Amino acid sequence: MSPTMMKALRKMSRGRGLQMDKVAVPEIGPTDALIRVRAASICGTDLHIFGWDRWSQGRIKPPLTLGHEFCGHVEKVGDEARGIAPGDFVSAEMHVNCGYCHQCRVGQPHICQNLEIIGIDRDGAFAEFVRIPARNVWKVDASIPERYAAILDPLGNAVHTVLAGEIAGHTVAVTGCGPIGLMAIAVARACGCSTLIATEVNEHRASLAKPMGADEVINPAETDAVARVRELTGGTGVDVLLEMSGNPTAIQQGFQMLRSGGRASLLGIPNKPVNLNLVEDVIFKGATVQGIYGRKMFETWVQMTSLLKSGRLNLEPLFRERYPLEGFQDAFALLRGGQAGKVLFYPNGDGEMGKK
Amino acid sequence: MSPTMMKALRKMSRGRGLQMDKVAVPEIGPTDALIRVRAASICGTDLHIFGWDRWSQGRIKPPLTLGHEFCGHVEKVGDEARGIAPGDFVSAEMHVNCGYCHQCRVGQPHICQNLEIIGIDRDGAFAEFVRIPARNVWKVDASIPERYAAILDPLGNAVHTVLAGEIAGHTVAVTGCGPIGLMAIAVARACGCSTLIATEVNEHRASLAKPMGADEVINPAETDAVARVRELTGGTGVDVLLEMSGNPTAIQQGFQMLRSGGRASLLGIPNKPVNLNLVEDVIFKGATVQGIYGRKMFETWVQMTSLLKSGRLNLEPLFRERYPLEGFQDAFALLRGGQAGKVLFYPNGDGEMGKK
Amino acid sequence: MSPTMMKALRKMSRGRGLQMDKVAVPEIGPTDALIRVRAASICGTDLHIFGWDRWSQGRIKPPLTLGHEFCGHVEKVGDEARGIAPGDFVSAEMHVNCGYCHQCRVGQPHICQNLEIIGIDRDGAFAEFVRIPARNVWKVDASIPERYAAILDPLGNAVHTVLAGEIAGHTVAVTGCGPIGLMAIAVARACGCSTLIATEVNEHRASLAKPMGADEVINPAETDAVARVRELTGGTGVDVLLEMSGNPTAIQQGFQMLRSGGRASLLGIPNKPVNLNLVEDVIFKGATVQGIYGRKMFETWVQMTSLLKSGRLNLEPLFRERYPLEGFQDAFALLRGGQAGKVLFYPNGDGEMGKK
Amino acid sequence: MSPTMMKALRKMSRGRGLQMDKVAVPEIGPTDALIRVRAASICGTDLHIFGWDRWSQGRIKPPLTLGHEFCGHVEKVGDEARGIAPGDFVSAEMHVNCGYCHQCRVGQPHICQNLEIIGIDRDGAFAEFVRIPARNVWKVDASIPERYAAILDPLGNAVHTVLAGEIAGHTVAVTGCGPIGLMAIAVARACGCSTLIATEVNEHRASLAKPMGADEVINPAETDAVARVRELTGGTGVDVLLEMSGNPTAIQQGFQMLRSGGRASLLGIPNKPVNLNLVEDVIFKGATVQGIYGRKMFETWVQMTSLLKSGRLNLEPLFRERYPLEGFQDAFALLRGGQAGKVLFYPNGDGEMGKK
Repeated sequence: MSPTMMKALRKMSRGRGLQMDKVAVPEIGPTDALIRVRAASICGTDLHIFGWDRWSQGRIKPPLTLGHEFCGHVEKVGDEARGIAPGDFVSAEMHVNCGYCHQCRVGQPHICQNLEIIGIDRDGAFAEFVRIPARNVWKVDASIPERYAAILDPLGNAVHTVLAGEIAGHTVAVTGCGPIGLMAIAVARACGCSTLIATEVNEHRASLAKPMGADEVINPAETDAVARVRELTGGTGVDVLLEMSGNPTAIQQGFQMLRSGGRASLLGIPNKPVNLNLVEDVIFKGATVQGIYGRKMFETWVQMTSLLKSGRLNLEPLFRERYPLEGFQDAFALLRGGQAGKVLFYPNGDGEMGKK
Repeated sequence: MSPTMMKALRKMSRGRGLQMDKVAVPEIGPTDALIRVRAASICGTDLHIFGWDRWSQGRIKPPLTLGHEFCGHVEKVGDEARGIAPGDFVSAEMHVNCGYCHQCRVGQPHICQNLEIIGIDRDGAFAEFVRIPARNVWKVDASIPERYAAILDPLGNAVHTVLAGEIAGHTVAVTGCGPIGLMAIAVARACGCSTLIATEVNEHRASLAKPMGADEVINPAETDAVARVRELTGGTGVDVLLEMSGNPTAIQQGFQMLRSGGRASLLGIPNKPVNLNLVEDVIFKGATVQGIYGRKMFETWVQMTSLLKSGRLNLEPLFRERYPLEGFQDAFALLRGGQAGKVLFYPNGDGEMGKK
Repeated sequence: MSPTMMKALRKMSRGRGLQMDKVAVPEIGPTDALIRVRAASICGTDLHIFGWDRWSQGRIKPPLTLGHEFCGHVEKVGDEARGIAPGDFVSAEMHVNCGYCHQCRVGQPHICQNLEIIGIDRDGAFAEFVRIPARNVWKVDASIPERYAAILDPLGNAVHTVLAGEIAGHTVAVTGCGPIGLMAIAVARACGCSTLIATEVNEHRASLAKPMGADEVINPAETDAVARVRELTGGTGVDVLLEMSGNPTAIQQGFQMLRSGGRASLLGIPNKPVNLNLVEDVIFKGATVQGIYGRKMFETWVQMTSLLKSGRLNLEPLFRERYPLEGFQDAFALLRGGQAGKVLFYPNGDGEMGKK
Repeated sequence: MSPTMMKALRKMSRGRGLQMDKVAVPEIGPTDALIRVRAASICGTDLHIFGWDRWSQGRIKPPLTLGHEFCGHVEKVGDEARGIAPGDFVSAEMHVNCGYCHQCRVGQPHICQNLEIIGIDRDGAFAEFVRIPARNVWKVDASIPERYAAILDPLGNAVHTVLAGEIAGHTVAVTGCGPIGLMAIAVARACGCSTLIATEVNEHRASLAKPMGADEVINPAETDAVARVRELTGGTGVDVLLEMSGNPTAIQQGFQMLRSGGRASLLGIPNKPVNLNLVEDVIFKGATVQGIYGRKMFETWVQMTSLLKSGRLNLEPLFRERYPLEGFQDAFALLRGGQAGKVLFYPNGDGEMGKK
């Protein structure tokens, strides 16, 4: 018999911090699924919510269970749900689209006008169970290990960014080597990119860029990154800029690294408006600039699964400590140091926890 | 026998103004053509060079014959030139690409790294004759009137901007109703766009937008243009932004008018960096932003010719006074008033001048 | 109070013909809508089912109410349906996709592996009421007349075909001037195509091609259509082939008309395999060939609505007689003559019937 | 001082066979380059010309020096040639486009209406020296070994085919494992493809498919290839078909392997028309079919160079014996056996010949 109460890591009130709580296992509707969480990963967004920054204050309505990167097993499915069954090993697209707005109607559900995010707008996966609309559940191929299945959400951001245009045979600059930037390096490499240059000021993050597949890593605090990129590309600049930092200076430099006719795909989130030299860096260059949000539903999931199955995507350097939910204070403290690793929770405790 | 000397309207020294001069008819090389100019049109760039603004001071090397929008008849062709013959009625792509750089090699000659512009970097078409590389000469279809043939250069900018992405069945905002903005309106309309909304503060320019095909014209100095566009699009925003003003405020508003998942094509040249809210206006929107420069060589010319031949592109409202080259002071004075019309020179004097 | 019984035009048994019947008004589920049919149009497929051809024998399971082109008003909506309300004037996408297969997941629901078609696999719109999944209902803009709203299904085929690639400024051949071919002519014209050449052997159909927007109509039984198209395109061939006939000879000729590097979009359904000269007509040409099926859900509907609202799509020449459902024998007899018109049923009898 | 006479392997008369000859070193024009051939590779087309098949009889005008796959060093450049200098290590695009036809003007020079092929329409590279238009010369990156530089022409065919659409994360079927099919396997693998299934009846060719990167190799003479592909793709079919055989049965099976909404890129040359089930295999599938010819000039060369430089393209299994030009009888005999290897000539004799 299914349990009726469960543990959950929650934001209980409008202020700093999180709290362990005991709540009812979610009830599901006819088009929902209930998932028993196996592993869940901490996102930078979770750090923001923990710290109760300005964005969190405007968006989050406590009490709320956090967590939007996870994997688990289907516990129960609603009567009208199709395509999944109890016991299936799954992850999920946590962006829930409305299905009726203009964007949903024209094949862009990932930028739905009425998007809700599980773990931000509804209770998430830092709990023993999570409720997900069945259409959003993604069956995970048996060949994919649990720790990888737990981070498909950010990996999907990276895949969406890299594959938003041509990449095979193209030179690439990745500005910013946080977890998604590092994953983007691995993805671009696996997809046949040419010379790949990464920039990063944080030493630990920079140290992971080459193991993930970068040909050269530049610390823009020490080296003229734009000049170096031009040198490495015979004066032409790179074909593709993958902007993963959100840092205004990095964004400006990234545009200067880009060749005329190149593609700039922007994923990093600057915390204020950015002053852009549109004439030199976009217009006269005939550049294409793409805003990247979420994951394409579900093209990105298909591509991501394929890349993982092919075995060429080595994400091992990213993985860090594992914790039970109750260890959340240590887990969040570890990440606040600015390191790039992925920290996993195991809310149902058993299993792979002891292993790397 | 061909004449050896000719009239030309030239920048003679580093300072304000232009001057009529008598110079040698250009000699042509084996891959060139010599064109007898029929009609030439004044571009905003010519106004900048006349006024000797900062950009001109950095780029222009007097003495120089101006003029890069024109039509005429082939007078002579070099031995290795193919595809044209004396007597052909032609215009020309005035951007001369090198043929060897990365961009030239990957099908983007319009953003060649070594681009030279005739009328800016070499002697142009405000003269009785002009020398053009034969590959850049474009035979004009017999159905196209002279006055249209004289403005294919800016019309090509408009066509390149409109057709840089899907347009049929899409809602459109055109920010800025200078000549190219107005042409873009006509082109978008001829290509099956849906609701087309134009913005413009200048009253005369605004008055031409509906005759060219706009459904609604907003004066953003009087009306909340972003709110009005949202209202006209059921709250969604427009599918396509064609930014033709170069005005930083118009650019910012244009991005706010754009729907999530939309396309922003930027042609207008701001004279300083622009502060962009990348998060709200590009990244979270999943928008695509395109820098537009020149004309695709020669896809744009093919498309433009087809649109003109089909007879659905009515550019009549744009045409203004005609002058002999000697009337240049009046011609430039007329345009400095901020009106959107196209003023034509007839360097060889005769013919259509008396007609509208 | 809603009625419980209604009239319907049905295939009652495995054999030729149709029959008027009295059946229960459909019950709807939580995600469905019930539509009161205003006008419904006869498709060529309905003629096949009437005649009980081989395809029908394999696909149709009597008893079945026919009809998949229609418009009407929402009578009732299920509890979980969103975006529509009783009284809304609507049409519907009659292809019902599963939402779970590979194609549904990667943004291609129109070629879903488990597609069901209302009016073919379930009871359709040749009745007073029809049940439609709410997601498939399309609100019709108030500016669009009833007779146009009744033929959005085939118009959508035409729009999907024309806009499957670039069209503005491109030369076009349309092979086959049945109703969808004729609509494609009007759509291509409204979207800025260049020279448009149609081919058709049936005299009545051919006579409608110019009124719909063709520049030239060729009867391939009398004229060498390939030679004529080459002549009209300066020896190059057309940029775009829209194949609407399904006739093997027309298909072969269409490929010969296509220029190297052109696009062939195939909608017509040949009734047997076609012998293609792949080397000359596809491979050496570097051609792109597209199979076109249904309508993109719902990009096509958005584009179609926009084109109709802009007022540039004149479909008047297509409309023919109107009938009550009971007049079906006359209606089908009229169409069996090979004419291209659209014949409308008015199952609820009143209203526009007397008007053209 | 440059020599004036040289050795060349030529077709001397209209009939079977080739012959060693002594001819004048080519004179070059102002836009040409003279290349001293280092290594040249035998193409299947050369076998056809040797055997004097029907195609050869219609196209080849003896006397003619064969050879269109090669690398060498620039010996001399014409006065107007830019971008290369004596001593540069180069290969060349042997398709010479006119620069003036419609296709050349719209960015499709690889399917120019007036294409000439060096080694087929003019004297080729089975000689000590070959004359090439300077625009067609491609500088080879120093990191690329000679034997690879000698086969950039067919490798370019493979790259053009694979990268004619999306490949990363996509399932692929390659029908036909001749040299270009095998290269396509390696390229698709390097560009992040998912499951890759090859089909081939010839045992030797099939044996190379897995070393080049195939996941599974099917002999369609023994196994139901279509059923097996469906099984391996969960019933869906492959995303991408790369047709490299030219065999009508393989083409038909390839289309049956393709999923709805997939891409079929056709490079193999069938020697007669092919009967296609357009309805089931193209139209209802919403498939995209692409004819592939030559290499994109010069996008393909850029991509190819990048893939080789990245070191992930292992073509070693393809290389076979090396010969001096005089050993041509043995060289051609070896290939007539139907094996897939690349055999190289060293017309200037020295150097790498002894090495593998």
